[in-house]
Amino acid sequence: MEATAQEVDAAVRAAHAARGALADRAVRSAFLRSAAAGLDAARDGLVETADAETALGPVRLTGELARTSYQLRAFAGIVDEGAFLDVVINHPDDTATPPIPDLRRYKVPLGVVAVYSASNFPFAFSVAGGDTASALAAGCPVVVKAHPDHPALSELVAKVLRRAAAEHGIPEGVVGLVHGFEAGVELIKHPLVSAAGFTGSVRGGRALFDAAAARPVPIPFHGELGSLNPVLVTEAAAVERAEEIGTGLAGSMTLGVGQFCVKPGLVLVPSGAAGDGLVKALTAAVSDTGAGVLLDHRMRDNFIAGVAERAQLPEVDSPVTPGAGGEHTVSAGFLTVPASRLAEEGDHDRLLEECFGPVTVVVRYENESEAAAVLSRLPGNLTATVQLSAEEAAGQGRGAEILAELTPLAGRVVVNAWPTGVAVAPAQHHGGPYPATTSTSTSVGGTAIERWLRPVAYQNAPSALLPAELRDDNPLGLPRRFNGVLER
Amino acid sequence: MEATAQEVDAAVRAAHAARGALADRAVRSAFLRSAAAGLDAARDGLVETADAETALGPVRLTGELARTSYQLRAFAGIVDEGAFLDVVINHPDDTATPPIPDLRRYKVPLGVVAVYSASNFPFAFSVAGGDTASALAAGCPVVVKAHPDHPALSELVAKVLRRAAAEHGIPEGVVGLVHGFEAGVELIKHPLVSAAGFTGSVRGGRALFDAAAARPVPIPFHGELGSLNPVLVTEAAAVERAEEIGTGLAGSMTLGVGQFCVKPGLVLVPSGAAGDGLVKALTAAVSDTGAGVLLDHRMRDNFIAGVAERAQLPEVDSPVTPGAGGEHTVSAGFLTVPASRLAEEGDHDRLLEECFGPVTVVVRYENESEAAAVLSRLPGNLTATVQLSAEEAAGQGRGAEILAELTPLAGRVVVNAWPTGVAVAPAQHHGGPYPATTSTSTSVGGTAIERWLRPVAYQNAPSALLPAELRDDNPLGLPRRFNGVLER
Repeated sequence: MEATAQEVDAAVRAAHAARGALADRAVRSAFLRSAAAGLDAARDGLVETADAETALGPVRLTGELARTSYQLRAFAGIVDEGAFLDVVINHPDDTATPPIPDLRRYKVPLGVVAVYSASNFPFAFSVAGGDTASALAAGCPVVVKAHPDHPALSELVAKVLRRAAAEHGIPEGVVGLVHGFEAGVELIKHPLVSAAGFTGSVRGGRALFDAAAARPVPIPFHGELGSLNPVLVTEAAAVERAEEIGTGLAGSMTLGVGQFCVKPGLVLVPSGAAGDGLVKALTAAVSDTGAGVLLDHRMRDNFIAGVAERAQLPEVDSPVTPGAGGEHTVSAGFLTVPASRLAEEGDHDRLLEECFGPVTVVVRYENESEAAAVLSRLPGNLTATVQLSAEEAAGQGRGAEILAELTPLAGRVVVNAWPTGVAVAPAQHHGGPYPATTSTSTSVGGTAIERWLRPVAYQNAPSALLPAELRDDNPLGLPRRFNGVLER
Repeated sequence: MEATAQEVDAAVRAAHAARGALADRAVRSAFLRSAAAGLDAARDGLVETADAETALGPVRLTGELARTSYQLRAFAGIVDEGAFLDVVINHPDDTATPPIPDLRRYKVPLGVVAVYSASNFPFAFSVAGGDTASALAAGCPVVVKAHPDHPALSELVAKVLRRAAAEHGIPEGVVGLVHGFEAGVELIKHPLVSAAGFTGSVRGGRALFDAAAARPVPIPFHGELGSLNPVLVTEAAAVERAEEIGTGLAGSMTLGVGQFCVKPGLVLVPSGAAGDGLVKALTAAVSDTGAGVLLDHRMRDNFIAGVAERAQLPEVDSPVTPGAGGEHTVSAGFLTVPASRLAEEGDHDRLLEECFGPVTVVVRYENESEAAAVLSRLPGNLTATVQLSAEEAAGQGRGAEILAELTPLAGRVVVNAWPTGVAVAPAQHHGGPYPATTSTSTSVGGTAIERWLRPVAYQNAPSALLPAELRDDNPLGLPRRFNGVLER
């Protein structure tokens, strides 16, 4: 089942050969809508196969599939609108220094995109997930490296996509699929691969990032690797909503057995009575959480070892001990540590690394500067969350300042809510400083399409030769910047 | 004069400390305009120093300085308009899958930017050049690595920028300047450096790109490295305008003693009488070109060795022999070679590498497919140019097809004009497939600002805490996407 180098080469060449069939935007959006309809129509079989391979359960998987087809349709709409082409037109201007000739710029697809599937999202970050949807929307064929946790599902989903492609006269090679670790390495090195999208671990992602950068012709590598997703609970918030915050945190950190990249993994809670109340509520809620099954045995082993290693550090307590639940399950829990232990480099830095699974680290701080010191030591994150009191949220107190302090840490700042749940929306940003992502881009939301395009400018091109997108009379009705003026 | 590691560290820390002073867009644009005014006011002294260090001559240098201050003012306008903030606002939408919470996204500055100056543009791609102007416009302080060809000028220009900064209460450290090869290496490795811009050679640029990628926290490296800038002359164009094209080519390839990154370095000319006429006109015009002085002795040595090595290849002729002109000068010339020699890998591939200085390679092709075969073997380019006949330009013939064929090769496609002369305009794109650039971005034109920003989204943030840029009532009047609708 593992693809040989020759098979990877064949998949990439087939994808490359299919790129012309994606040139027409109307064909692309129709293809994406057919793919969405195909996934919806095949739902029962897909969810059954996914559940057999991942144990994520039919409810979660049905929801994830709906998200996936919603996302394909959202990108179809983006393709139709055409704002992503970023059309800019300048007529000649002799008053500029130097003079400006006729210049017209838009964005063109990069070429074949390699997509590395995630274990924890067999639909939404896999074969038909956000990387694939945004790449196809941009006009780029894809070759997907299937995740070993769901190979059969990967094949089924690829078939749905290929059937949708065929409906619109697009060669089936437009969506390639390969299995196997070595195949993934071959893929990133292939001369006809122009860019890559990845969701997974820091170790795996960094190895592929390094390989992408080391190519004779380096390519963009958009990887989402790992994130601690810090949460800051202010003293006033703890006083006001200890129970609500403790219970909410328990729900967010144990959602999907803690297997979300945006799971809150470090929570700054004030010391003292209000914080104690929060920890008490958290204890109660986490204790009530049933054991869960992780995606595979490797993850279960890593989780058990990871929490054990962290729990034995000096001054680390575990009010609810996370670890092995049953033979195949794990039980949720959390650790506590005084903020002073994290003020400087040391053994406790292990607590500043992501631990995949249903565990979080509650850091008790004495004062604002202690909390700030811990935040300043964190690596980059997908999200940073703050829980504020009603007064702070209304603008009395340090709320705005805290938002400004959290902004450098993450790509999404959440207020009085939880980071789990990543909406597919134009304003979404699912990315953040390294290692959250290896680039400044997002892997969720409309702007994810920008990753697979590059601008090209035409100088002095006669109107008769211009692509329709760049003509003065704007026959396609595209939003654009025309002689400096934004037109909608 | 070479900066020690400690001095580099001090410069980066001073720049980092100055970032808060750039937060206000009104201050930034005022600073950029003061910098432009300062350069204009200091013109005579700056041009004199630049000419003494580079021998580029007062006419060219005065023009380049005007371009540089124009560019600073253009970025001031971009800062004021605020479209680059890319504001996207989504109100909650429970009908989406999954539901969309309140989400508001815009772009924030990355942090300190390292700028590596170019030898051949002591003003426009150096201390106050496009990288610096766009980084400051984005809100990022810079530390510039001066080019060793113009150290005194670099100091003078930095002083002008710092004086302008001080006028607006911005610490002078906002523009750092370091000299020395080792300092450049230290700079790219500094933990507080968030991104880099570079204009220079493939060798130097690739080494820095590799260092940027190998950091514990990799950073974006926007390098403009090298480009052959192919030109295709169609048979019909040669028949119609042999003399005009030959003369125009001579002017473009010898402009600035051939020291432009967009110099046409490979020209596909049809075999036969029309092409012969073009070569004759080129011969006459290049023969009339006086000897010139290259930027430094290293470049002169490389030029002389580079053309000699190419000229001795089988079937390579030199109708006008380029090489050593006088003791310090070089003379312009060009080489010819049959396209068949470039159809496959071999010794003649040396002709597909950029040779800095006043030389170009005229490739004579027998038919369209021979020309296409040569084009398909080229590395990425900043520009690709086609010379068409009037009929072809009017849409009769293969004009549109040729444009489509040239698009994958370059970031700018030029029709019936020459690639030298890079306008500063919103529609400009000065970049292209590797090695033309190491990213998909541009180093000239308004969109160059995008290189120094990253998006951040705020979820469920109360209105009282939001930055003004993200408020519903749009107090700053920014262009934005509001609940899916583009607003200007």
